[in-house]
Amino acid sequence: MSGTGLNMSRRIRRTPYTERVEDSGARGFTVVNHMLLPKAFDWSLEEDYWHLREHVQVWDVACQRQVEIRGKDASRLVQLMTPRDLRQLASGRGIYVPLIDENAGMLNDPVLLKLDHNHFWLSIADSDVLLWAKGLAVGMGLNVVIDEPDVSPLAIQGPKANQLMEDIFGGGIRNLKHFDFDFFNVLGTKQLIAKSGYSKQGGFEIYLNGSCFGSALWDLIWKFGEKYNIRPGSPNLIERIEGGLLSYGNEFTRANNPFECGFGSQCYLGDDLEYVGSKALREISKKGFSRLIVGVKFGTDPSLPCAIPFLVTSVGGETLGQITSAAFSPRLRCNVGLAILPLSHCEAESKVVVFTTDGKRHEGCVSPLPFG
Amino acid sequence: MSGTGLNMSRRIRRTPYTERVEDSGARGFTVVNHMLLPKAFDWSLEEDYWHLREHVQVWDVACQRQVEIRGKDASRLVQLMTPRDLRQLASGRGIYVPLIDENAGMLNDPVLLKLDHNHFWLSIADSDVLLWAKGLAVGMGLNVVIDEPDVSPLAIQGPKANQLMEDIFGGGIRNLKHFDFDFFNVLGTKQLIAKSGYSKQGGFEIYLNGSCFGSALWDLIWKFGEKYNIRPGSPNLIERIEGGLLSYGNEFTRANNPFECGFGSQCYLGDDLEYVGSKALREISKKGFSRLIVGVKFGTDPSLPCAIPFLVTSVGGETLGQITSAAFSPRLRCNVGLAILPLSHCEAESKVVVFTTDGKRHEGCVSPLPFG
Repeated sequence: MSGTGLNMSRRIRRTPYTERVEDSGARGFTVVNHMLLPKAFDWSLEEDYWHLREHVQVWDVACQRQVEIRGKDASRLVQLMTPRDLRQLASGRGIYVPLIDENAGMLNDPVLLKLDHNHFWLSIADSDVLLWAKGLAVGMGLNVVIDEPDVSPLAIQGPKANQLMEDIFGGGIRNLKHFDFDFFNVLGTKQLIAKSGYSKQGGFEIYLNGSCFGSALWDLIWKFGEKYNIRPGSPNLIERIEGGLLSYGNEFTRANNPFECGFGSQCYLGDDLEYVGSKALREISKKGFSRLIVGVKFGTDPSLPCAIPFLVTSVGGETLGQITSAAFSPRLRCNVGLAILPLSHCEAESKVVVFTTDGKRHEGCVSPLPFG
Repeated sequence: MSGTGLNMSRRIRRTPYTERVEDSGARGFTVVNHMLLPKAFDWSLEEDYWHLREHVQVWDVACQRQVEIRGKDASRLVQLMTPRDLRQLASGRGIYVPLIDENAGMLNDPVLLKLDHNHFWLSIADSDVLLWAKGLAVGMGLNVVIDEPDVSPLAIQGPKANQLMEDIFGGGIRNLKHFDFDFFNVLGTKQLIAKSGYSKQGGFEIYLNGSCFGSALWDLIWKFGEKYNIRPGSPNLIERIEGGLLSYGNEFTRANNPFECGFGSQCYLGDDLEYVGSKALREISKKGFSRLIVGVKFGTDPSLPCAIPFLVTSVGGETLGQITSAAFSPRLRCNVGLAILPLSHCEAESKVVVFTTDGKRHEGCVSPLPFG
């Protein structure tokens, strides 16, 4: 078994694709939602980056678990969990929803899939949203059933994803709009496929219902993908930072409100919508917030990996904030990072100084997201 | 940085002790509560096992995060979360509490520390209990504040722990009864120390309040521990299985009720106590439950690590259940495992067959817990 350094156990759940991922030479994993997410293969992050931008990749993102909410009060509960106004959301649509607690602290930032009026999936980042949803439902006596179904997303990402998916599932798949989904025949079963994914290169996610089909689905994608130079992959750190894609637990936590994360436009602040944290959020909106997640370019030599946040100061040495994810962009020829900084220093081209954990000092400047 | 194979990021939180742990030669980690737990050092699991039984070890178990519940309704909320009767629990006491959901499914099995009538810590296994507690509190409109304080347990385990802790903190520490705690002077600060830990060799846990003291505390323990042949360690798989210590996510999940886990004696079933899941639990108690977690001895050669549960069948080939954790016991000269099996096969010495994931067939038999 691969994964030296990460001790394996039942608690760190394997996915329906882990066997194929291991056979493909995965040499590193991380853990998301108590489940393996492959992170490194037999080539460098930089090679992976260029490949993702030019070809097509298959990603085991089964760790994006679904929190399924069904029942008479399902749509009420889902609305209670997010400041985003869901009143006009149609079935068959996906939508990115910040989840907040009673203090307007971020709890997760899933994609919400509306399967039906009384039937939703929250496709989650790394926190046990199921427990939050169940707590609210039990506490309020709501008529819902909340569970984690046997649904494991497999992502097909990259510029050739459109052509590959059309080859396999027919031209209809091209009609999907961003975040929308429909059901397609996959290995003789009906499966949900969404136009989505954690990259800016375009692609799809197959929400495979039924772990038993995992290897067969992987093999099917692989067989059709060979002519497009397909490779196994996973969210690419360089590409996601360049694209300004935030990661829960990295860029933001429960200590951050949605405004700080740049999710302000997704927050409905009128008093005709009931959701947890609405009062706190309206107060923050009134008083104003003081910091924001922005991009930072720093240094022209590859820096250390950002396992511990990097300190960001003003040119004068005043502590400003921290870089929470960083990588060297081979395209921009500098390090790119995501940082939380005071509004006073968030304007593009603002000069800052970054201290990497090896003690090195790098001159940097603020960049709009996504990076150019 | 150590941890080849486990990709590091801010999301996988380091602990106040990680730097010292890395300096001690840790070469493997796992992730619990979004935080690093060291699992392997520069010696074998078997060497570690003998050392733990004979000497003393210092364990970075900061991943046992505290869910702090304070306020007027704190004791009501804590009682709502567990079937264990807390009405007689005194301040200064710790107690092992199963947490269940509305269907009596296990959500976690923390140690509850009662700091005061309105002030509790739940020292948790691997699930976001904070979200469950917050969901219930928000849903019911309870007057509580729920948070994760900057408290990071450091465990001192092994037969020489008593003497080591007395050397450092004075003879008073010997008066602590199992699971009880008191406050001691640690590096000039007042810190909670409990007589507890995830081994059967005895020991203490220092609930260090203040990450900034992490390295200093580690160094203090180390300095006094050298004469007792101290080593860094972590929960030892062989020792914990032999001791019958279950692990949430490994031996049991939300799919199991407390009776199946052997926690029946901790469940109060009278109708004069209000908690979530009480109705479901009383129904299960009335109808009876059908399976139980037991020990299984199998094979005399070390088996594969149990990263994927092992199938357990009857001698006749009927599927019975699975082994969820296993290790070779150098003392008992056989593999020992924790398995969930139907009651019909739970009696000591019942014959079973175990199939490890390499396809090998092993004869086995049921053993009482802890293993003899």
